[in-house]
Amino acid sequence: MSHPIVNYTSESSWAMVEDKFSPYAKETLAKLIKFLEEEILPAQKIAHAQIPTDPVLRWKTIIPVIAELKEKAKKVGLWNLFLSKAHYPKHGVPLTNLEYGVMAEVLAHAGHMGPEVMNCSAPDTGNMEVLARYGNDEQQKRWLEPLLNGEIRSAFAMTEKGVASSDAKNIRTSIRLEGDEIVINGHKWWISGAGDPRCKVHLVMGKSDPANKSAYEQQSVVLVPADTPGVKIVRPMQVFGYDDAPEGHCEIIYENVRVPKGNLVLGWGRGFEIIQGRLGPGRIHHCMRSVGAAQSALNLLLQRVTDPGRKTFGKFLYEHGTVVSDIAKSRAEIESARLLVYSAALQIDKVKAKGALKEIGIAKFVVPSMALTVIDRAIQSFGAEGVSQDQELAMRWANLRTLRIADGPDAVHIQQVGQRELKRVPLLVQKTKERKEREQVLFRKYNIKAHL
Amino acid sequence: MSHPIVNYTSESSWAMVEDKFSPYAKETLAKLIKFLEEEILPAQKIAHAQIPTDPVLRWKTIIPVIAELKEKAKKVGLWNLFLSKAHYPKHGVPLTNLEYGVMAEVLAHAGHMGPEVMNCSAPDTGNMEVLARYGNDEQQKRWLEPLLNGEIRSAFAMTEKGVASSDAKNIRTSIRLEGDEIVINGHKWWISGAGDPRCKVHLVMGKSDPANKSAYEQQSVVLVPADTPGVKIVRPMQVFGYDDAPEGHCEIIYENVRVPKGNLVLGWGRGFEIIQGRLGPGRIHHCMRSVGAAQSALNLLLQRVTDPGRKTFGKFLYEHGTVVSDIAKSRAEIESARLLVYSAALQIDKVKAKGALKEIGIAKFVVPSMALTVIDRAIQSFGAEGVSQDQELAMRWANLRTLRIADGPDAVHIQQVGQRELKRVPLLVQKTKERKEREQVLFRKYNIKAHL
Amino acid sequence: MSHPIVNYTSESSWAMVEDKFSPYAKETLAKLIKFLEEEILPAQKIAHAQIPTDPVLRWKTIIPVIAELKEKAKKVGLWNLFLSKAHYPKHGVPLTNLEYGVMAEVLAHAGHMGPEVMNCSAPDTGNMEVLARYGNDEQQKRWLEPLLNGEIRSAFAMTEKGVASSDAKNIRTSIRLEGDEIVINGHKWWISGAGDPRCKVHLVMGKSDPANKSAYEQQSVVLVPADTPGVKIVRPMQVFGYDDAPEGHCEIIYENVRVPKGNLVLGWGRGFEIIQGRLGPGRIHHCMRSVGAAQSALNLLLQRVTDPGRKTFGKFLYEHGTVVSDIAKSRAEIESARLLVYSAALQIDKVKAKGALKEIGIAKFVVPSMALTVIDRAIQSFGAEGVSQDQELAMRWANLRTLRIADGPDAVHIQQVGQRELKRVPLLVQKTKERKEREQVLFRKYNIKAHL
Amino acid sequence: MSHPIVNYTSESSWAMVEDKFSPYAKETLAKLIKFLEEEILPAQKIAHAQIPTDPVLRWKTIIPVIAELKEKAKKVGLWNLFLSKAHYPKHGVPLTNLEYGVMAEVLAHAGHMGPEVMNCSAPDTGNMEVLARYGNDEQQKRWLEPLLNGEIRSAFAMTEKGVASSDAKNIRTSIRLEGDEIVINGHKWWISGAGDPRCKVHLVMGKSDPANKSAYEQQSVVLVPADTPGVKIVRPMQVFGYDDAPEGHCEIIYENVRVPKGNLVLGWGRGFEIIQGRLGPGRIHHCMRSVGAAQSALNLLLQRVTDPGRKTFGKFLYEHGTVVSDIAKSRAEIESARLLVYSAALQIDKVKAKGALKEIGIAKFVVPSMALTVIDRAIQSFGAEGVSQDQELAMRWANLRTLRIADGPDAVHIQQVGQRELKRVPLLVQKTKERKEREQVLFRKYNIKAHL
Repeated sequence: MSHPIVNYTSESSWAMVEDKFSPYAKETLAKLIKFLEEEILPAQKIAHAQIPTDPVLRWKTIIPVIAELKEKAKKVGLWNLFLSKAHYPKHGVPLTNLEYGVMAEVLAHAGHMGPEVMNCSAPDTGNMEVLARYGNDEQQKRWLEPLLNGEIRSAFAMTEKGVASSDAKNIRTSIRLEGDEIVINGHKWWISGAGDPRCKVHLVMGKSDPANKSAYEQQSVVLVPADTPGVKIVRPMQVFGYDDAPEGHCEIIYENVRVPKGNLVLGWGRGFEIIQGRLGPGRIHHCMRSVGAAQSALNLLLQRVTDPGRKTFGKFLYEHGTVVSDIAKSRAEIESARLLVYSAALQIDKVKAKGALKEIGIAKFVVPSMALTVIDRAIQSFGAEGVSQDQELAMRWANLRTLRIADGPDAVHIQQVGQRELKRVPLLVQKTKERKEREQVLFRKYNIKAHL
Repeated sequence: MSHPIVNYTSESSWAMVEDKFSPYAKETLAKLIKFLEEEILPAQKIAHAQIPTDPVLRWKTIIPVIAELKEKAKKVGLWNLFLSKAHYPKHGVPLTNLEYGVMAEVLAHAGHMGPEVMNCSAPDTGNMEVLARYGNDEQQKRWLEPLLNGEIRSAFAMTEKGVASSDAKNIRTSIRLEGDEIVINGHKWWISGAGDPRCKVHLVMGKSDPANKSAYEQQSVVLVPADTPGVKIVRPMQVFGYDDAPEGHCEIIYENVRVPKGNLVLGWGRGFEIIQGRLGPGRIHHCMRSVGAAQSALNLLLQRVTDPGRKTFGKFLYEHGTVVSDIAKSRAEIESARLLVYSAALQIDKVKAKGALKEIGIAKFVVPSMALTVIDRAIQSFGAEGVSQDQELAMRWANLRTLRIADGPDAVHIQQVGQRELKRVPLLVQKTKERKEREQVLFRKYNIKAHL
Repeated sequence: MSHPIVNYTSESSWAMVEDKFSPYAKETLAKLIKFLEEEILPAQKIAHAQIPTDPVLRWKTIIPVIAELKEKAKKVGLWNLFLSKAHYPKHGVPLTNLEYGVMAEVLAHAGHMGPEVMNCSAPDTGNMEVLARYGNDEQQKRWLEPLLNGEIRSAFAMTEKGVASSDAKNIRTSIRLEGDEIVINGHKWWISGAGDPRCKVHLVMGKSDPANKSAYEQQSVVLVPADTPGVKIVRPMQVFGYDDAPEGHCEIIYENVRVPKGNLVLGWGRGFEIIQGRLGPGRIHHCMRSVGAAQSALNLLLQRVTDPGRKTFGKFLYEHGTVVSDIAKSRAEIESARLLVYSAALQIDKVKAKGALKEIGIAKFVVPSMALTVIDRAIQSFGAEGVSQDQELAMRWANLRTLRIADGPDAVHIQQVGQRELKRVPLLVQKTKERKEREQVLFRKYNIKAHL
Repeated sequence: MSHPIVNYTSESSWAMVEDKFSPYAKETLAKLIKFLEEEILPAQKIAHAQIPTDPVLRWKTIIPVIAELKEKAKKVGLWNLFLSKAHYPKHGVPLTNLEYGVMAEVLAHAGHMGPEVMNCSAPDTGNMEVLARYGNDEQQKRWLEPLLNGEIRSAFAMTEKGVASSDAKNIRTSIRLEGDEIVINGHKWWISGAGDPRCKVHLVMGKSDPANKSAYEQQSVVLVPADTPGVKIVRPMQVFGYDDAPEGHCEIIYENVRVPKGNLVLGWGRGFEIIQGRLGPGRIHHCMRSVGAAQSALNLLLQRVTDPGRKTFGKFLYEHGTVVSDIAKSRAEIESARLLVYSAALQIDKVKAKGALKEIGIAKFVVPSMALTVIDRAIQSFGAEGVSQDQELAMRWANLRTLRIADGPDAVHIQQVGQRELKRVPLLVQKTKERKEREQVLFRKYNIKAHL
């Protein structure tokens, strides 16, 4: 009997990776699918309904049904699956990036809620990775443990208002020492999760040593408790009209915020190092979730176009125009995107994120665009309902649209992949030279006058 | 000296139509541009700020700055420009569809606000056309005059919940006679403008004669005052998170709504005729506004990518990657879309909407997609700011996305254009036959044995 | 009764330009269509059959049926229509670029043969323009007159082997004075028309003053009789498998070729000026022919997909898959491309080629790609027959593919259009500044605190 | 040390399949790469030069250098690698489809020549599969053995002139019994390989039982020696001007061709069964070769855009416009296409071609189009040289273009994949139903009134 994952991916893509899965991973994956179907998916509408529409209250709410599901998930061991023991021996679970990647795709069928229920939500995931890798004992005890337990949440404050943030060196927030205290002044925005009442700590990136000769040693990362005086949440930013309450994406001013020296992470001037380490696997998880979002949208489209109540002019929707062709293309695009992400995840497992930058970059610029296309087709099949609050499609589209911007816009990844590809040229030139030498020998042997 | 329109279109596209503009139209266009720049554009942010965030109040507000501007616009004669005297001799202004089309494009630089200020907003425009063409004297006096004066607003209630609405024959709302009254029962949604406190009348389309042999004579349109008992506004629908208050797109239940017999428009069973007549020019105006939206987005992009404050890695944004290429493509796409819409508008002026269905259909499926692409590029150039409430781009994108669905989804127009094109086949076959006959003569003359 | 052109373009695009056509142009256009249908199209297969398959003879043949048709065309006044009197008062015909552009589109339905029969083939057209504009009396008498009479043909030798030719300054062919003679040494290729037995003169571009400070004054153009000693035709180049005999695209070595000083065109060091002037209208004519090629391919596709002999699984081809959608898109793409080229041609008529560089550039990178797409769809509808010698589609595709390279590759035009568009920024910035000032006034008036 | 395949594919795609390769396959792959680089690639130009230009002789030539290389390849065991022992236990080699697929990709770097040298050319491969699977002992002895030895070549005669061949039931060639003889009459074209002087046998598909109730039992396949009286080769068909001599794609008339009854393959009326079995793996090998062709084109592009001799305006080609972006996209497209084909090949290995129809269909419509796009970019980077006989790009493009037509046009595969995807609907509907039931329980538990 085949693994239930084939209902979420396909027999052929599962065949590509099945032999790379441990027995534990296969079992966990099956458990996760069962939990998703029986617990999470049926609770999605409840969760939406439990967010107040009141513009103030919606930012003060812990959604009850999600809180309950978190307890259940923790109990059955579907918890912190993102943290790979291979990279985080002390806190991690025995799953590879590839194994967790497949799970992340499945979880995406429940939107944001899937990862959250299993304590696998961004930006907490990246922050836990930072604290697990770079945090000292005290920092881990105070912040990492409650994060790993799902008791608190966190934010990563990097993006700045009015700054071209795809070049991280442009950061202007000031971080300076004053006696035993670190003083922070800056204006950030798009700080995800900072609106959540459970958000207790911000990891703030700023310029601590602007005069340093190395542009990559001018930054530091500091832990700032969310209730520190001077931390002012200005407003939630909207994404195509959505505020994503209660988590939100906040504009924040840090005005003379003071924290003890011990809140510095890793070391003075090592902020760049931290963000570099933070990005690889997370990007792949975003990509896998994008694949899952696309697959989920295609599933909705399939049901819509075969719905007898949606016939027009006596025919099913799928019997009109280019619908079948759109389905086939969507299927092919999802399948190939999934395989791309699998291979990037496998590469991370083999040679760490640093060695997999080309594969990560490819996935990063290919997959969200693919998912946007597929979801857009699904929206079109639903007509006006597709752009509305009655289907999850529009919200998902908006959320995915930000992925083409966040963690480096498409253009940056495209350029980097292209530049890396250019590095193959010397080998190609060498091979061409060797071939031409052999060619000359043959020209002489066969007495042929080459034209070129 | 060239006309100011060339700053909004281009010298070459203006050259294509300049000689088709009357002196009055040219003058009005210049006046409109001045009014747009001096009055409307500077008031956009004010208008947004004057919409309350309170979820109840935002539906009870008449935006003050817009109300003031409407008075000013009426005074200077920039009023009801959409209503072409050629088609509406009694109420119309002496402008052709082509002439107004160019104005509609310019007005779109101010988003929804441009047309509203000049009393040229959908759905009022289409409703005024219906009343001007089909309304009797009493109906015109009661509803058309205050609409033409901008004193009230209106809604057109056609789309139904749970119904495949791209086939208008599917409509289920019941309209029946009971003595001297018409009784209406139905469940509609996406009724634009019905949320507005000034909306005083709904034109409701329903099934009045379900047993009629002709599927096109089963429908009627009835005028329903918005405050008639039984008219229940259920909720505003959202478009990608936007509720578009105060106008909104409402879900409405009509429950035993009773109006006098005299509220029937045109005649019993003539609803289809009414909606057919309603659609042509309006679609072109939507298309022209889409072109304007795209042009406006490109203007924003151009300023962003040359902003010295946005340099990364020492270079302007436009010096990176594919930005210049994206600009060139956007320019070309806008230009060709504009010319397509010009030619469709001209065709309507020449042979009425009925004779211009192919041109209208082409514009309808080409132009909104083009505009979405250009705006998406502009969004990308702004990074996260582009998807937020701080730029008009995301809201415009969402609004335009609905145009690929409203008034017939893309697929329907594509099929119809394709089918119309197939009608050219008999002429082509005839010409081919004639050519082959002449060919045979030549084959004999030159003594050549044809292979085919 | 409508003009016969609407069978080749469309009513709506004709409506856009009809009032810009002189009575003479309208009449000539009708005559040209009649001649095309009755004389040229039926002779196409004969012409192909009259090219010998023998690899030597095919380069020594003057195709009899074309020679006959040229005489007929000249007799009825369908001759040299490309040469606009407005720009060439002495030799030209009273047609604008727009008027001739429409004719060029129609002629393209007969492929290469259409223009050739009316003495409107490249590269002769460009060469006649050069001689008419820059040639002295003697040059005009010796070369221009027989060219205008269709007695000889010509070549323009610019592209060089092994040189990045999209940067014309890279040219290496040496042109130097030795006493009263000019001596030419160089290695060219892709010299179109040089294979033709009637080709009597080459206009050779070379470097005459490599030390000149201005990179744009280092080149000269010299007239070289085709039979001058030292002119060696190396081989015909192929375009995807086609050699385009008898005209061909030749690789040529100029080895110590000596011509009298009087063969210099315009002046020493003025070669750049000559090629600049040569390019504008010719590019638009290429574009119009591309539109015609696309229209002609769509006509073939329409007949194929409605052919009862081509039914599969009981249905016409057009009833399968995405065929109707492909037709609709093709129609829309052709229509918008045509309007783009019309507007570029009109712009040339208004402000000369120099003032229309943006419009020419847009047409140049948009239209051939559009035509390739449409023809590719037609090929697909014909199956294997579509790629073969039994349909003109594959040959047309190959020919059009070169247009994305010749006269500047797409990338160059895209960059130039983008850069020109960036020149609009200062005006936009100024307008934005003015708007913001008015905005501030309103903010104060309405007592609103702007967020931005 | 990494396997040399990573220079032809990538580390990450190799990682996906390395553990699925047997030691024998890995070793064979390494040997094949060495042979390709040292023997085949340097001989490509020789092989081209050894095809006579004479229109008659070019069809009578056995290319000497290829004949020599075939002997070498056979000697070192690089022979018949396409024939998988798992499917053909008697004649096959111990390689899976996945393993051979990777080799097919590499071989494609030498175009047609790679497979030919190793006796892995279509249509011989498919014909050998047919004979190995369905041929009786005598047929295998007479035809299969010399084919396996590379002594003769063969053709598969299915496509018919004037027939919509994507519906195989349309076939009209008549096959009937007359005593002990089978008599064949029909008009075929596009019979690949039939021009080759070594082609000794045609497998002819025709209608043997037109009255049979089952449309799938009306056809038979018969072995026809190429020199049988009545076999008339009419002419070679061209593909974008290429005749692909000496193999060619021939138009053939079978006129009263008589062969003994024993030449029937498998059984009377079993022709459909034969062609069904013939198509699966072959399609995947075509796809892998397409990936290889794309990779090879990208390698050429990379060398061209970094060639210092190709600088324009002082910059390398790759520093202009969208070149780096095109490279990145090409890389991503190749990578994802490769993974798609891997997964289809693996699926064939797991559940035979019949179980892998969706995966095969996806690869079939995705991969050739991808390769055409990448090769087109490479052509553009080479300018006019790219479309000429001096680079292999144009010929490759033309060859690949036919893959979108052969073995079922794109549209057929797209429809079939879409239809197969629709079969997932019942499971999706069931899952949705289950979810909604659980949802209702939760709605009651939390006392929420569902809107939908």
